[in-house]
Amino acid sequence: MSNTVKIVRFHKTGGAEVLQFDELPLPEPGENEVRLRVKALGLNRAEVMYRSGQYMETPILPSKNGYEASGIIEAVGPGVDSSWIGKTVSTVPGTCSLNGYGVYGEVAVVPFRSIAVYPATLSYEEGASIWMQYLTAYGALIWLGRVSKGDFVIITAASSSVGVAAIQMVKAQGGTSIAVTRTAAKKARLHELGADHVIVTDEEDLAGRVNEITSGKGARVSFDPIGGKMLASLAAAAAHKGIIVEYGVLASEQTLFPLSTALAKYLTVRAYVVVELAQHKDLQEAKQYIFDHLASGAFKPLIDRTFRFDEIVEAHRYMEANNQVGKIVVTV
Amino acid sequence: MSNTVKIVRFHKTGGAEVLQFDELPLPEPGENEVRLRVKALGLNRAEVMYRSGQYMETPILPSKNGYEASGIIEAVGPGVDSSWIGKTVSTVPGTCSLNGYGVYGEVAVVPFRSIAVYPATLSYEEGASIWMQYLTAYGALIWLGRVSKGDFVIITAASSSVGVAAIQMVKAQGGTSIAVTRTAAKKARLHELGADHVIVTDEEDLAGRVNEITSGKGARVSFDPIGGKMLASLAAAAAHKGIIVEYGVLASEQTLFPLSTALAKYLTVRAYVVVELAQHKDLQEAKQYIFDHLASGAFKPLIDRTFRFDEIVEAHRYMEANNQVGKIVVTV
Repeated sequence: MSNTVKIVRFHKTGGAEVLQFDELPLPEPGENEVRLRVKALGLNRAEVMYRSGQYMETPILPSKNGYEASGIIEAVGPGVDSSWIGKTVSTVPGTCSLNGYGVYGEVAVVPFRSIAVYPATLSYEEGASIWMQYLTAYGALIWLGRVSKGDFVIITAASSSVGVAAIQMVKAQGGTSIAVTRTAAKKARLHELGADHVIVTDEEDLAGRVNEITSGKGARVSFDPIGGKMLASLAAAAAHKGIIVEYGVLASEQTLFPLSTALAKYLTVRAYVVVELAQHKDLQEAKQYIFDHLASGAFKPLIDRTFRFDEIVEAHRYMEANNQVGKIVVTV
Repeated sequence: MSNTVKIVRFHKTGGAEVLQFDELPLPEPGENEVRLRVKALGLNRAEVMYRSGQYMETPILPSKNGYEASGIIEAVGPGVDSSWIGKTVSTVPGTCSLNGYGVYGEVAVVPFRSIAVYPATLSYEEGASIWMQYLTAYGALIWLGRVSKGDFVIITAASSSVGVAAIQMVKAQGGTSIAVTRTAAKKARLHELGADHVIVTDEEDLAGRVNEITSGKGARVSFDPIGGKMLASLAAAAAHKGIIVEYGVLASEQTLFPLSTALAKYLTVRAYVVVELAQHKDLQEAKQYIFDHLASGAFKPLIDRTFRFDEIVEAHRYMEANNQVGKIVVTV
């Protein structure tokens, strides 16, 4: 083990090329912290936005980056039982800040509360592709939406890692998933991945198709990271007393609230980000639910493509090109 | 008792003048119905909109009108115990349609499920001024908003009958009310009526003032029948995990959903109309709560002005002029 390690940082915000490999002294874990020897990194759109200076957290430069890593605990700080050394774990996003604890690197120091064990049947690549996608989906679909047998659930941006996780979760809950994608390119793939229905918004009217699929009942839950014009479409497609969970702002246009439609159907629009669940006491229950479903095979992280550590800039560019279905992973 | 009675109907939608007195045969209550000898009518904005053809329910012409009457049961149909004859009751809006069961008239036939007893200490005028305002406020503030001790609650259109009821309800729950009114004209009156704070939006910045009042915490609950630009102001004034209950569309402009603000605060926007509560099993609990608070004197219906039955057109015009604070009542 050398005395220096490679850590990915950026010294200014901007395009993927601002990510650079800084040779830094091996960091020691402080109180209630652990140091992970990183094996794989799971990439998230949040990290692209953070790198560009468009995220809710503003980088303090030079800044680390990265929410999700899997790896082996190689050192613990005061307050953490040394029996944790040697265990394989991955990091739970939203429990600590990107500024302080970005995990892109050969090692990552993170708070003990931010790590979680995952089933041993999973690879490192899969281990780095769990918590963001399943926790985000859990918070919206189960914690807030209480999806259960018989529910119709609309999932927009369905080919994202969170979207694919949501398709699996709706199935596990006994609901019917309606995956929404912009072009026909990913339609067949979404069906293969378990979507009960796929709507291509460039070719089909969302509310009309949902009306057909649900026999006029509408979707009780919608799960949407887009906003903008999508909110009015989802309200038109919603069931009486439906809930629309908004978890992002991918649309560039303003978001109109369809107040008359909402009043006619008693709709709830809930803005939600995974940090909310990650900082709530119900996180334990969520983690257990996800662990159990991974262990049983009901949930299976979908990896779109794997990059080498020295290709992290290309990996970011690949995410921005938006052709993936599932998770982009970097092995370290 | 004559064999004909005067019933207010309209044969076309339009201004207040379309309301006319039709001399009709005394109606008999059908199965599970009662006939009320009407003593007082409480007017609602919904009835102005219904008369104008702008309500969620479309009139079948000629149409009756009116949600709220107090009076004495003088006849019961099959399925209703005759011991109800002679009892003083008032009608609960949202439990039956305006088309079939409008109550503007010397008598009104309504479903048995749509009547409720109120405390004997109240006058007929007060008895006709209970259910719309207190149930609407209850549904938003207690049923959905769970207002309790320490909560800050924003009430827009605060001088409406629902707004005044909400001020009383927030106080009864131990919360702090922040009444919002457009001009300074009603400011002193709202303080007299128990509002803890009054914000005049023509002169003051809503979010800035709420920030001061709540020491930066924001309002946990907002209760708003306006929409339009108001929604963004309420989101800016909201607390972390706050809820904004929208119960009307008084604004003429489109309603923008402030998605980024909502995501930063995990906000819920809930569209609600009283019909939802009126048709829910929790209606009984709501009615009991309201009865108890009327009986104790914690709630006191505020009557702005009383008109005679033959002045019903003037009463509608007076409501449209929008200068009232509290309920407009018509005695029959």
